[in-house]
Amino acid sequence: MTIELHDLAAADPSVRFSPYCWRVRMALAHKGLDVTTIPWRFTDKAAIADSGQGAVPVIRDKGRVLHDSWAIALYLDEAYPDRPKLFAGVQARGLANVLRFWSQSTLHPVILKTIIMDLFHAIAPEDQPYFRTSREARFGMTLERFAFSPESGAAVLAQNLSPMRAALDSQEFICGSRPAFADYMVFGAFMWARSVSSISLLDPGDPVHEWRERMLDLYDGLGRAASRIESARQ
Amino acid sequence: MTIELHDLAAADPSVRFSPYCWRVRMALAHKGLDVTTIPWRFTDKAAIADSGQGAVPVIRDKGRVLHDSWAIALYLDEAYPDRPKLFAGVQARGLANVLRFWSQSTLHPVILKTIIMDLFHAIAPEDQPYFRTSREARFGMTLERFAFSPESGAAVLAQNLSPMRAALDSQEFICGSRPAFADYMVFGAFMWARSVSSISLLDPGDPVHEWRERMLDLYDGLGRAASRIESARQ
Repeated sequence: MTIELHDLAAADPSVRFSPYCWRVRMALAHKGLDVTTIPWRFTDKAAIADSGQGAVPVIRDKGRVLHDSWAIALYLDEAYPDRPKLFAGVQARGLANVLRFWSQSTLHPVILKTIIMDLFHAIAPEDQPYFRTSREARFGMTLERFAFSPESGAAVLAQNLSPMRAALDSQEFICGSRPAFADYMVFGAFMWARSVSSISLLDPGDPVHEWRERMLDLYDGLGRAASRIESARQ
Repeated sequence: MTIELHDLAAADPSVRFSPYCWRVRMALAHKGLDVTTIPWRFTDKAAIADSGQGAVPVIRDKGRVLHDSWAIALYLDEAYPDRPKLFAGVQARGLANVLRFWSQSTLHPVILKTIIMDLFHAIAPEDQPYFRTSREARFGMTLERFAFSPESGAAVLAQNLSPMRAALDSQEFICGSRPAFADYMVFGAFMWARSVSSISLLDPGDPVHEWRERMLDLYDGLGRAASRIESARQ
């Protein structure tokens, strides 16, 4: 029985752009677990109501319903202990948890600011009013005003990536010699951008760019083969 | 035979304030290794010339001379594999390496800006001209101009600590349930401030403050018992 994943979809339902759902997609591939994804829209709260909250990723496995990408990763290591671990022990999990919040507080905001108009135009028309209203309330300004120019976004992101870039000088992945959940956390943020936007976030000479290339190749090119909206492919 | 550590000392030679030397002090305590510290001053390049460079920490062990706190930590785990590990494996080491650069790029600069005048007044008179000249060249401005007010420093630091604070919501230490080298890296930065300055960097209600209290208690209160300059004890 394959695991079901409610996966945030764009207007084109083959385009899956949630950074948190991408963490789970990569985690499932890491563990070699089959998945059936179910396209989900922001306004489709009913489909995941039994998870007790209103956001994806939500997975269904062995009669259980789980949400939150971090909690799902912990569950997968516990429920499938004989498969490759997402966390190589308590210390690695603790360190990855700090990097979870680093990623969410320093990478996510700048990527969101950079791609937000592309993102807005990519999502389903029925999601657009919800997205605009909820985000403008959160940001305290219009989406248009919140947005960074591509140049500003790339410059701020390059700066914020400096700890990761420095570490990549002596290791291939955030998790060392092999990728694991902390890599998927950061990669999810880049898949968010890649799915909906053609804006170039990384310079080809940047070690983080090379890392992202390695990540795109993992699991038979799962990330590289993923659908992007038409304008993002240009 | 105990390990020798060349340890940066203030005008009062009992006051040891280098954040990088504190990483090594804590790492040696973690591994239960005896240490003899040798007070060292910025201008005392001759004493460590055989390390091939001019900064501490430098350790001498089993006929070897090693420098750089990260390299020393890797060496200690390799040379003393039967003692408690500083890194619980390749993945934990990779993750800690990212946090090393996070700490050095987001915590060190703000702490330095906040304590720099206290630091300047704490160091040995013979070190002061060297310190002022080298730092002013690096910063491109006078120490006085570089300095943050205590209030600004604490506010910026509180913001920059947000990933760590969020993680401490569900774990006692950066490394999870027990402290290890990533904790010592961040703790070293706080010992730097504590040794030379009375400026309060953390609010007592902050989970990072509670973490620092736990760190000060480790190894029979090694950090808490450490000498501070007179004005820092006020």
